[in-house]
Amino acid sequence: MNQPQSWEARAEEFSLYGFTDMPSVHDRGTVVVTHGEGPYVVDVHGRRYLDANSGLWNMVAGFDHKGMIDAAKAQYERFPGYHAFFGRMSDQTVMLSEKLVEVSPFASGKVFYTNSGSEANDTMVKMLWFLHAAEGKPQKRKILTRWNAYHGVTAVSASMTGKPYNSVFGLPMEGFIHLTCPHYWRFGEKDETEEQFVARLARELEDVIAREGADTIAGFFAEPVQGAGGVIPPAKGYFQAILPILKKHDIPMISDEVITGFGRTGNTWGAETYGFMPDAIISSKNLTAGFFPMGAVILGPELAKRVGDAVEAIEEFPHGFTASGHPVGCAIALKAIDVVMNEGLAQNVRDLAPRFEQELQRLAQKPNIGEYRGVGFMWALEAVKDKATKTPFDGKLSVSERIANTCTDLGLICRPLGQSVVLAPPFILTAAQMDEMFQKLEAALDKVFAEVA
Amino acid sequence: MNQPQSWEARAEEFSLYGFTDMPSVHDRGTVVVTHGEGPYVVDVHGRRYLDANSGLWNMVAGFDHKGMIDAAKAQYERFPGYHAFFGRMSDQTVMLSEKLVEVSPFASGKVFYTNSGSEANDTMVKMLWFLHAAEGKPQKRKILTRWNAYHGVTAVSASMTGKPYNSVFGLPMEGFIHLTCPHYWRFGEKDETEEQFVARLARELEDVIAREGADTIAGFFAEPVQGAGGVIPPAKGYFQAILPILKKHDIPMISDEVITGFGRTGNTWGAETYGFMPDAIISSKNLTAGFFPMGAVILGPELAKRVGDAVEAIEEFPHGFTASGHPVGCAIALKAIDVVMNEGLAQNVRDLAPRFEQELQRLAQKPNIGEYRGVGFMWALEAVKDKATKTPFDGKLSVSERIANTCTDLGLICRPLGQSVVLAPPFILTAAQMDEMFQKLEAALDKVFAEVA
Repeated sequence: MNQPQSWEARAEEFSLYGFTDMPSVHDRGTVVVTHGEGPYVVDVHGRRYLDANSGLWNMVAGFDHKGMIDAAKAQYERFPGYHAFFGRMSDQTVMLSEKLVEVSPFASGKVFYTNSGSEANDTMVKMLWFLHAAEGKPQKRKILTRWNAYHGVTAVSASMTGKPYNSVFGLPMEGFIHLTCPHYWRFGEKDETEEQFVARLARELEDVIAREGADTIAGFFAEPVQGAGGVIPPAKGYFQAILPILKKHDIPMISDEVITGFGRTGNTWGAETYGFMPDAIISSKNLTAGFFPMGAVILGPELAKRVGDAVEAIEEFPHGFTASGHPVGCAIALKAIDVVMNEGLAQNVRDLAPRFEQELQRLAQKPNIGEYRGVGFMWALEAVKDKATKTPFDGKLSVSERIANTCTDLGLICRPLGQSVVLAPPFILTAAQMDEMFQKLEAALDKVFAEVA
Repeated sequence: MNQPQSWEARAEEFSLYGFTDMPSVHDRGTVVVTHGEGPYVVDVHGRRYLDANSGLWNMVAGFDHKGMIDAAKAQYERFPGYHAFFGRMSDQTVMLSEKLVEVSPFASGKVFYTNSGSEANDTMVKMLWFLHAAEGKPQKRKILTRWNAYHGVTAVSASMTGKPYNSVFGLPMEGFIHLTCPHYWRFGEKDETEEQFVARLARELEDVIAREGADTIAGFFAEPVQGAGGVIPPAKGYFQAILPILKKHDIPMISDEVITGFGRTGNTWGAETYGFMPDAIISSKNLTAGFFPMGAVILGPELAKRVGDAVEAIEEFPHGFTASGHPVGCAIALKAIDVVMNEGLAQNVRDLAPRFEQELQRLAQKPNIGEYRGVGFMWALEAVKDKATKTPFDGKLSVSERIANTCTDLGLICRPLGQSVVLAPPFILTAAQMDEMFQKLEAALDKVFAEVA
């Protein structure tokens, strides 16, 4: 129970909680966090947690990275705020746009800033609607995504998200079409090979385009690895099967790299890891290592040219957020890109990923783990009641939440997602800290499986 | 012309410009800003501009406020990033929510964070859809706003915005209804008194509710003073006429205080200045004095209770942004509220507003100024070709853009909006700086009117 005027009581009195299991808050209280040390966070009671969730995937340099902190402080001293409207912008904004095109997979391109991944996806949808209308196709408005996709929470980006919970808002809106999630282990049919599964998903895409008409479809958005859907890497050959179909029908392919961008899969982009070339990239999260709210749309050469021409024709693109291209955010992002890509963080992901996988492989031997999956520093363990039939536990048992709560009690933060437990630690994690993570996770798994199995 | 590798050339090569007149950029080049001094910003060529736009209404403490900078730096040292999902949040987040309810017009309430005003309005719409569905009215989804309203640029908040430019995106979406703008000078009919004008707008609201059905209307959103619509204070008695009608039909009234909140009208809230009590408040911009991207939905007691009950019933509110309640943003907001409300900034607005108005009254004597209007530190001068008939200049003359560009050449940034020029300087402006602003503005007005009149 909360003490009056305790941090926990004050939090509950004044907060409307988002993405929070309210019975857990009432039972266990809010965890009010004051500071961090490397990959650990510390709460008001001095309890210390290894945050294997990197905050929300984003605090990849940990919670007290000196270089990052110094970069933020220096820019606050230099110029603490400006916008990018009316043909004015800060020098930091110019430098970051140049850098983003340089590190993108594109030979040239143009950048538009937002404050979040949600806003960046929402912006990309508006940009596609604008582009197609300018090119004489005002009906080319439908958006294709996949089940279990997560693209954000504005009404439009929530409509792109393929999760049943959005029905409480009366979403998705009309014109947002969700294709099959490319998770072979779960959605492959009996006796279907992975190759056959991918061929089926490609046929589904062809069928949907034939049914709806390519001239009604504005774009196809995909995370290279589905993140909040439960860490779902694509079935082998998925993007190689999908992209030529989109290309043939003149449907732009947008890679939502909010989670996968800047090192999470071991490379700069998830598109690189899975060997495909998108028409545009959505970036956020790691872009600032979580130190500042920022999103970016990075248009590849073709879209940059076409959107640019459409803008010149009407003389103004009537879109933009007050803090788009904020100088502090841009200075922080310039530092974050350097820290992650050049100061050993992405290298650490590549170095430790095999050890990560080895440990998961070991845990996946347990009778109540159905699958482990992932890449780089984003992995999931899927709990099952019956390994052979892949039967999940009764939802009422809240197995993954119990595992996550048990981990929290042991000083480890990990994320329950459906019946899986997700591990996505900061890129600064050492081998010893990885061992600590797995020891605590295994203790929690054994305790909870003993209770429910 | 841009020099190769000049700041201007780099800006154009890599940026997709938002809310920017592209012919001006090609003619005049991008203004690349490096730093600021008080209410002035300085570009890469050392040119200094008095920014009478406060950045984008938001840099109300100026561009180098030491107290604000120190607060930002201190929090980066303490805890540079976290989220507010899963029943966890930072101590700064708890403190800011408590403070926001304390300074709100509400006796109690609950706070939800976003990264922008756009996201806050989008969130409020989703919250209303969620609430009404939970209360058994899933059809209660339409949103009422007014022409010339500005509520943001996500697809939903752009649909709320009452500006013709959104047609290039195929917006507004269905179910977003725009009522008459409460601008008596422009929209009052011949021989109609201000009182009759307000009565007509109240009848229009009654008629729209009767036509659509109150059970199909989710909420009514209004800026106390329309900002990006051209600084339009409400006709006298407008909110007093509107609110009882909304109340009678159980339609929540949301005060969008993104611009008016925290001092712009001289008080903490525009609702205070215009004497009405909303059901919820949308805040952003001044909330952090522009030092950090942040928006907030502040629910008053009734909505807090109803939304809270609806959340408890399904155990989780499935909404939230990665940087919602970011500890640095919250620490900055705590400082900004204190600086603006308690360290003399709002007081300066109140002290200098009469002098501001006096100067505008003087300029409004010119034959090509049709009206001056505003409150506190947000004002507009409306250019007209013919004062008696209120006939505007030919749009092709781009009168307000020419005035603004001439001001820029003189070292003054102000904002052209339609045929008006908007002045919304930082709250730290001194009387001498105000004189400088008016001297430069008057020189620009005289030059441009001599050319076009």
